[in-house]
Amino acid sequence: MKEEQIIQLIQKSLPAKNKDVVVGIGDDTAVIKYDKNNYLLFTTDSIVENVHFKKTQTTFYQIGKKAIAVNLSDIAAMGGIPTYALVSVGLPEGKKEIINGILRGMKKLSDKYKFDIVGGNLTKSPFLFIDVFMAGKVEKKYLKLRNGAKPGDSIYVTGSLGGSQIKKHLNLIPRIEEAKTLVKKIKISAMMDISDGLSSDLIKLAKANKVGFEIYLDKIPVSSDAKKISKTEEEAIFHALNDGEDYELLFTVPEKYSKNIPSKILSIQITQIGRITTQKSYYGISNGKRTKIKDKGFNHFKTPAN
Amino acid sequence: MKEEQIIQLIQKSLPAKNKDVVVGIGDDTAVIKYDKNNYLLFTTDSIVENVHFKKTQTTFYQIGKKAIAVNLSDIAAMGGIPTYALVSVGLPEGKKEIINGILRGMKKLSDKYKFDIVGGNLTKSPFLFIDVFMAGKVEKKYLKLRNGAKPGDSIYVTGSLGGSQIKKHLNLIPRIEEAKTLVKKIKISAMMDISDGLSSDLIKLAKANKVGFEIYLDKIPVSSDAKKISKTEEEAIFHALNDGEDYELLFTVPEKYSKNIPSKILSIQITQIGRITTQKSYYGISNGKRTKIKDKGFNHFKTPAN
Repeated sequence: MKEEQIIQLIQKSLPAKNKDVVVGIGDDTAVIKYDKNNYLLFTTDSIVENVHFKKTQTTFYQIGKKAIAVNLSDIAAMGGIPTYALVSVGLPEGKKEIINGILRGMKKLSDKYKFDIVGGNLTKSPFLFIDVFMAGKVEKKYLKLRNGAKPGDSIYVTGSLGGSQIKKHLNLIPRIEEAKTLVKKIKISAMMDISDGLSSDLIKLAKANKVGFEIYLDKIPVSSDAKKISKTEEEAIFHALNDGEDYELLFTVPEKYSKNIPSKILSIQITQIGRITTQKSYYGISNGKRTKIKDKGFNHFKTPAN
Repeated sequence: MKEEQIIQLIQKSLPAKNKDVVVGIGDDTAVIKYDKNNYLLFTTDSIVENVHFKKTQTTFYQIGKKAIAVNLSDIAAMGGIPTYALVSVGLPEGKKEIINGILRGMKKLSDKYKFDIVGGNLTKSPFLFIDVFMAGKVEKKYLKLRNGAKPGDSIYVTGSLGGSQIKKHLNLIPRIEEAKTLVKKIKISAMMDISDGLSSDLIKLAKANKVGFEIYLDKIPVSSDAKKISKTEEEAIFHALNDGEDYELLFTVPEKYSKNIPSKILSIQITQIGRITTQKSYYGISNGKRTKIKDKGFNHFKTPAN
């Protein structure tokens, strides 16, 4: 099965029984009722040796930091802030340099974003993996979901996209601060983070809202690393559209509010890259030419045989 | 490094900043302030192919069930009940029979113990692993910690111990219901679950309380599976003392309350196996002979080289 089919199967098999579940499986985080003004957010994400990093090409400090940062990106995508984390580590051997490196990486972000790592689990494993659970909270009025985009809404992204494998995926800065400011200043109709690649995540956003989109290909903010690894401008756009692990924000704004969107939030660029359409098709537009956008982003289980 | 040293290093490196953290790293779950009458509980535990199960010796249904059950055991050890779970799965391939089996196993326990699985994560991985995060809650007055045992306290266990690898580790029944009843009926001074083996977990309990213990070896409730795999009674006791994955409760009761402890709770046997001592030594007593108890339970990282 493909990843999407698996997630649909899981959603169908595990309907929420508790009325306190505001959003269950399928968004960047689960949303649970908490107190009068706030929701609880729960998310989990793991990184696995030889899938998300290679031990020979990275330090344990970077691995620890990345394991936390990808989860912070999910909390940011809901408009929330992190509160607590738990960490499960699978290790082939309990070497001090490995543990210390991972710990230092995690502590760096725990101090920066002021959340506590309150628990965890260590297990022997034939390969290194780190699974992080992150809890957060969000003021009810600032909660943003994947769901909520309407035809005519403008589509935006933060930062620049593509080429994350060169270095950004190990040094990613989760958009916690930017999201906090965005949800206060801008009428956002839907938001998610870009983790599997813009094309893949745009299609997920469209499906969640039963809509389509048109993307102005020449407007996509291409990262300097995507440019470096590309021979042509077209190739660079392809990277920006399809490479995974950008960990930027993708959001939509109703047309009537889209005139007042600033070009930067804090110091991060905001770019309008397209608009939501009624027709459930996915198009890229460049020099007046329309081409179909396909989901070429990261998919863990592509094999059609399953 | 040994597992214990690693956990000490982690505890030291990551002190809690938030005042809402009642208990951080080091107990069966983290304990977080919630509302007037309740605490939140957070825990995580993972199972890894060829470490905690072999694909050839188990069904995916059993694997899914075990991944959840080991976490429920931690929630039970605090006197709590489960509320929400998130599940991270690492899979070599997205085969429908694997996903379906794991899902059915998880759903079985989610229905039985009335908690919701509200999120998760799927990733490609060279080996199958499942990491579960479990949230729970406990009424403040019923919270039980590892910490709290005093010299003179009687030591008890639920059920019978040893030989879990024969079949129990795949069919374990987390002691949620028993713990709920125990914390209401009995003055418990400290409680934890037995996951690494009685010897190992007794020593953890003793260290957490800066005390020692004496165990009446002939009183240890030996499971029928431990007896089956043993040639002598002594060997069976050795299994009960040192085998891992019992997932029973270990708890202490102040001496003055220990006269009224029932022999069963619900239908599960309760056995007094020893007492807490002021002297920080660990002894087993059999026929008047005292022998030192060593931590022979499960340790993920024994290699002294690290």
